[in-house]
Amino acid sequence: MNHSSSELRRDILSGKWVLLAPGRAHRPGETLFHRVPQPVSPARDCPFEASRLQKETPLLFLGSSERDWRILIIENKYPALRPGHTRIQNIPSKFYKVLHAEGYHHILITRDHKKNFSQLSTEDALLVFRAFQTHYQTLARHSSVRYVSFFQNKGIRGGATLYHPHFQILALPIVPSDVEESLLSSHSYFRLHKKCVYCSLLQREREEKKRVIYENERALVFAPFISRQPFEVRVFPKHHSPYFEDEKEDVLRDVSSALQFVLRRMKTRLFDPDYNFFLHSAPVYRKKAHASYHWHIEVVPRLTTAAGFELGTGIDVNVVDPDEAARVLRFRKKIKSLDPKAFNL
Amino acid sequence: MNHSSSELRRDILSGKWVLLAPGRAHRPGETLFHRVPQPVSPARDCPFEASRLQKETPLLFLGSSERDWRILIIENKYPALRPGHTRIQNIPSKFYKVLHAEGYHHILITRDHKKNFSQLSTEDALLVFRAFQTHYQTLARHSSVRYVSFFQNKGIRGGATLYHPHFQILALPIVPSDVEESLLSSHSYFRLHKKCVYCSLLQREREEKKRVIYENERALVFAPFISRQPFEVRVFPKHHSPYFEDEKEDVLRDVSSALQFVLRRMKTRLFDPDYNFFLHSAPVYRKKAHASYHWHIEVVPRLTTAAGFELGTGIDVNVVDPDEAARVLRFRKKIKSLDPKAFNL
Repeated sequence: MNHSSSELRRDILSGKWVLLAPGRAHRPGETLFHRVPQPVSPARDCPFEASRLQKETPLLFLGSSERDWRILIIENKYPALRPGHTRIQNIPSKFYKVLHAEGYHHILITRDHKKNFSQLSTEDALLVFRAFQTHYQTLARHSSVRYVSFFQNKGIRGGATLYHPHFQILALPIVPSDVEESLLSSHSYFRLHKKCVYCSLLQREREEKKRVIYENERALVFAPFISRQPFEVRVFPKHHSPYFEDEKEDVLRDVSSALQFVLRRMKTRLFDPDYNFFLHSAPVYRKKAHASYHWHIEVVPRLTTAAGFELGTGIDVNVVDPDEAARVLRFRKKIKSLDPKAFNL
Repeated sequence: MNHSSSELRRDILSGKWVLLAPGRAHRPGETLFHRVPQPVSPARDCPFEASRLQKETPLLFLGSSERDWRILIIENKYPALRPGHTRIQNIPSKFYKVLHAEGYHHILITRDHKKNFSQLSTEDALLVFRAFQTHYQTLARHSSVRYVSFFQNKGIRGGATLYHPHFQILALPIVPSDVEESLLSSHSYFRLHKKCVYCSLLQREREEKKRVIYENERALVFAPFISRQPFEVRVFPKHHSPYFEDEKEDVLRDVSSALQFVLRRMKTRLFDPDYNFFLHSAPVYRKKAHASYHWHIEVVPRLTTAAGFELGTGIDVNVVDPDEAARVLRFRKKIKSLDPKAFNL
């Protein structure tokens, strides 16, 4: 695209518009990259250190013994949802729907206080996904659970309140409306084209190459054409696969190492930004109805702040063309300067 | 609601779920209120000082003369949208829709470097709305314009890059999908109940009283039952009125002074938070089709950070019950302590 003009791009799947405005990156005071080294909170105050967690009853651990755990899943002490303290109750109203919500809010912790996901060994990164998958299957058995959300918040701008690397798991009694919309759209596409919309999209991205950042045998990483945030990326299993919980280990291995790759690239290329990544998978109930979905992971580095326009319209303004984002994250050699003017950002 | 439990609340109009989780406010490290005094950028470096702006050609000014302006509207130097540099072009695709976007991106500036909207005289606050209304009517005449977005970003957490109080105006060639959904829902409600859904809601809030924060002759301020953010409020004209651009001056006066009231309360009660406010009005084209809408203003103080859960599901987590939010903002006397545990936040 022309870098002094803007484009409005609408995702057919989500119905959402994005305003791509690379010219806005030149504003004075616009600093995408925060080069300030981030402080490490000391391990002695950390509630997720092994010595403290030994008093907890783990929901799941992976490692050679409960003492030598590599991965631990425990209950969140400040849960957004609680199990069965009340049954799901539908309060009827003309204007809104209210559920006294039943659900689960758990935390997955990796052992090392300072090693974030991208710095784990390939084996430990796979362990994170295997532990979560096992736990996912357990949560999915509860009749009240309809959707499981898995994500990581890294750093203050990513909304994390604790430094020690951890992942969150929320099991919800509803399907989020954003997910519902993608499900409906992928279902319609499948009926019309006899093909998964994400499989078609992956094929197109692999042919066009421009936005592909990394590829291994079973996973593909690319910057989506409609990126709501600067340097947003997606990690997809290449084969058609709606349900994360049923995924085979070799795919999990390739997806987790592809995710590690791109997080390492973000760290070196984008000056160690805070970020969130999250899983999108089909709901755990009425599984057959969602066979046209394709599970994947989205990574969003937290470089900008949503303001009045985004809050008031639901349209995100993105100042970085995803073609450029892919170029920056793909290049083997470190680009000398990340001054926006230097390379069309 | 019970303050150790959570509720899922779904807005019938937008289809969006909110997870209300007051228990989360007790997390260590959770600091809703930032008591740090905010620095004032010096006026000598400010591009919006009168001496600098005299070189610009204003699009509109209000005041006794162009030199003695109280309100000025100019073009944004780093526009997200530009007028007519290319015609709107629809690039067809299976996956997305792309428009080379034509539009306008203007800035409304109030004169005083240090006085934000809540500190303006009642007359100057009204002038802001009158200037914007006049400009809105001008923008609406362009055939490419379908929706006009008006908002203010205050402070760094609110996404503002400049200190001097200013407001943004974006004239878009599309109707944002979030607005589209509210229009469709309000239209359906009207057909079913022969009544505006917002009028019904205002009536209910006035009867129930719990969430009403302020009321004058022609405007009502309340904390919505489904608040996506802590201490979110809405300011509505009381009479049915879809189009901001056609609103009479006495209503504008009452709405702008109601908005000033609640911003002052936020300043004293919530430790001077950054915030955004934005206008929601019916689109400027096919006006008759949107007669069931009801224009209003939404104010969102920026107290929390959206994280992986919000980004991954579209469900906002709000740790403050709107009943409590209204209580805090309504009380005449300053509450002694804003420690969350002190009053059920």
